[in-house]
Amino acid sequence: MPETKQITTRVLPGFMELLPAGQIQFERMRSTIQASFERFGFIPLVTPVIERSEVLLSKAGGETEKQIYRFTKGENDLALRFDLTVPVARYVSEHFNQLTFPFRRYAIGTVYRGERPQKGRFREFYQCDIDIIGLGELSLVNDAEILSVIYTTFVNLALPDFTVRINNRKVLNGLFAGLGVGELAVDIMRMIDKREKIGDEAFLGSLAELGLSAGVVARLSDFVQIRGSNAEVIAGLQAMGIQNELFEAGVRDLAEVTRAVEYLGVPLKNFAIDLSIARGLDYYTGTVYETILNDHPEFGSICSGGRYDNLAEQYIDQKLPGVGISIGLTRLFDQLSDAGLIEPGPATVTRVLVAPMIPDLKIPLEIASCLREAGVPTEVYLEAARLKKMLNYANKLGVPYAVIVGEDEIKEGQYSLKNMLTGEQAKVTVEQLIDRVKNIPDSDI
Amino acid sequence: MPETKQITTRVLPGFMELLPAGQIQFERMRSTIQASFERFGFIPLVTPVIERSEVLLSKAGGETEKQIYRFTKGENDLALRFDLTVPVARYVSEHFNQLTFPFRRYAIGTVYRGERPQKGRFREFYQCDIDIIGLGELSLVNDAEILSVIYTTFVNLALPDFTVRINNRKVLNGLFAGLGVGELAVDIMRMIDKREKIGDEAFLGSLAELGLSAGVVARLSDFVQIRGSNAEVIAGLQAMGIQNELFEAGVRDLAEVTRAVEYLGVPLKNFAIDLSIARGLDYYTGTVYETILNDHPEFGSICSGGRYDNLAEQYIDQKLPGVGISIGLTRLFDQLSDAGLIEPGPATVTRVLVAPMIPDLKIPLEIASCLREAGVPTEVYLEAARLKKMLNYANKLGVPYAVIVGEDEIKEGQYSLKNMLTGEQAKVTVEQLIDRVKNIPDSDI
Repeated sequence: MPETKQITTRVLPGFMELLPAGQIQFERMRSTIQASFERFGFIPLVTPVIERSEVLLSKAGGETEKQIYRFTKGENDLALRFDLTVPVARYVSEHFNQLTFPFRRYAIGTVYRGERPQKGRFREFYQCDIDIIGLGELSLVNDAEILSVIYTTFVNLALPDFTVRINNRKVLNGLFAGLGVGELAVDIMRMIDKREKIGDEAFLGSLAELGLSAGVVARLSDFVQIRGSNAEVIAGLQAMGIQNELFEAGVRDLAEVTRAVEYLGVPLKNFAIDLSIARGLDYYTGTVYETILNDHPEFGSICSGGRYDNLAEQYIDQKLPGVGISIGLTRLFDQLSDAGLIEPGPATVTRVLVAPMIPDLKIPLEIASCLREAGVPTEVYLEAARLKKMLNYANKLGVPYAVIVGEDEIKEGQYSLKNMLTGEQAKVTVEQLIDRVKNIPDSDI
Repeated sequence: MPETKQITTRVLPGFMELLPAGQIQFERMRSTIQASFERFGFIPLVTPVIERSEVLLSKAGGETEKQIYRFTKGENDLALRFDLTVPVARYVSEHFNQLTFPFRRYAIGTVYRGERPQKGRFREFYQCDIDIIGLGELSLVNDAEILSVIYTTFVNLALPDFTVRINNRKVLNGLFAGLGVGELAVDIMRMIDKREKIGDEAFLGSLAELGLSAGVVARLSDFVQIRGSNAEVIAGLQAMGIQNELFEAGVRDLAEVTRAVEYLGVPLKNFAIDLSIARGLDYYTGTVYETILNDHPEFGSICSGGRYDNLAEQYIDQKLPGVGISIGLTRLFDQLSDAGLIEPGPATVTRVLVAPMIPDLKIPLEIASCLREAGVPTEVYLEAARLKKMLNYANKLGVPYAVIVGEDEIKEGQYSLKNMLTGEQAKVTVEQLIDRVKNIPDSDI
């Protein structure tokens, strides 16, 4: 049937699809993130991939709206979610009366954006989000907890040296107001966001282009260059002598959040106030976060978020302040892979391959069942083949152990356990076999 | 802004969305299924939700094609996957040279069918699939392994009394051929599939309507009524005296598969040959499975599948025989919930709520970090509130323990641990606290 073979069987461009070894590592990252989130009492929340377009479009804008996957089915105007924030806002509004606040949820799922496919940009990608949503109010210590979650998650992921940078939008907005340029806040914020990318000179030039006076530009330049320990940065901010309530509140907030972060045991080397972080999104109103791998600043922020005043004002007449972050897992995995930061691993979860040397599979299958009952992922090589082919299969997949079951072994009640990495071989009973292969940490394989 | 409040913020009909307690139980089922699959060496495989329409439509037909979510984005004719089988066929074809066979994969993900929404029918639902795909050939013992996976999975899910029913399409097709009615095989099979639903009389009537002779109808009636132990059923089949090679091969296959299932330790009470199972899908060619909750036959089959000759003939010139099954998790969860078979559980994963009675949160946050480091999901009540409100929060969510941290407790270094279920309260050090709350099985809470 030559025509049917003409079907393009390639995955769509912009969609990540992994081979088994990569997929296993991806899943390991995903479950590590999930376990880290649950450690802090966040509960899983799953919402549909498809929503009414009017729900999604009520929050989308600009680029996002262009990128949205939208279609009709029957009479319904539908779209695929482009983030996990709009769905949680819809969820909280819809189920408001059945939820307990503060509501702590995580969501790990795919979102869809029809971006131009290019290296590092995906049209389907996993986001791993947490949010704490309060009713009416939400204590500032939650902002510290969120930072502690980021820290714990990246430690558990065994990622190299990273820094969570935090800032506070009140400090920025208060500063602009205090300097009399509040109406340009959004533009100035955008320039501050770009500063790291464009460099100091272009940054100062761009401020001047906004029509700011030399004096204001100098103050802003001083501001973004305040450096040092958290205590020093806070002292530096206080020393600026800005007479603005919002600014002062922001500085107090930063001090309170960083103090609570220390209480939570996050090492000082893993977080820092960085006054040059603004996070473009309009709805952040307080703390904002970015996370940088110190040796890979080119990754950009691998975990970002912030505090917002009201999650779902477009859906419900309740004030729902919150704070949350998001990890773009698909992109992060892609970047880590490209940078060689993901160790190559096995293409299987199997720990033991049972290799039968006899046509009657009674004993090999029984041994496999014993291992499985003991929690050891086990396969039996079920096709007729020579031992060499079976061991070759184990080697190709990266199965760490093979158990050879032949007539002699069955008579003796002792089976040959072969360590596929070292080639070592030993005769063991089934009990010894289970003991030997059971509690081996991944790193020892 | 009254207009913006007009947005319909309800989840779309036909889409399951759970409240926290339900979601936690759903996730527990999902991870139990996943762990069960991995125990047998199946590896995770994730493919995109969106595929090219031509890929999906090459296998779809009839109802499925009408139900498909299809749309264009730019120049691409796209669709949402309606099962996980077509994607794995596309994946194996595309990555054929990088895979090792037999290829054992599981996939747990959502699929989409625009069915008319009705009770128990979902437009987005989770399927949990496993398949073993051979290259050129695949030993029959794999069919037994698949049954062992079904058994293990449902035991791990702690589902009530269930039976995996198996049959073999060769027996059916060989029987029809042997009776000289091979050209009506598909129609007869459809009637056999319906027999349980429509009853014996209607079944026999429908066979007569197909134009079958009274003699053939009598033989078919005898056939579907063969009962007894697996050995008895096989003896009954042999005693029918059907002179047909396919039939004989099918009977041999059934005998071999059921023997291997016994070797794998599946209790006889949990599986049975059932000659009335056909499974409509055309591509099954050997073993077929259905799984029934014995006390809830109205659920229908909760896990079905079978053996097929060729997974991906429409995509690749390789013979890829396989055997696999699928659990429709969303539907199963819905049915179990309706039948009251899902125990109500907490609306949180949190095991301990730290309740601070003091404004300085240093010690409460430190205690929380200790608990989290020890692996105990922990929350701190961070809003200013009285103890009563905090304990009320714990009660509403179903948090099993609260630790009360006040000035006296801090002085003593002993904190009040309250069992929220029994009301018992004890003074404990942080170390004792961790010991007490750490390794409590869920069932003891």
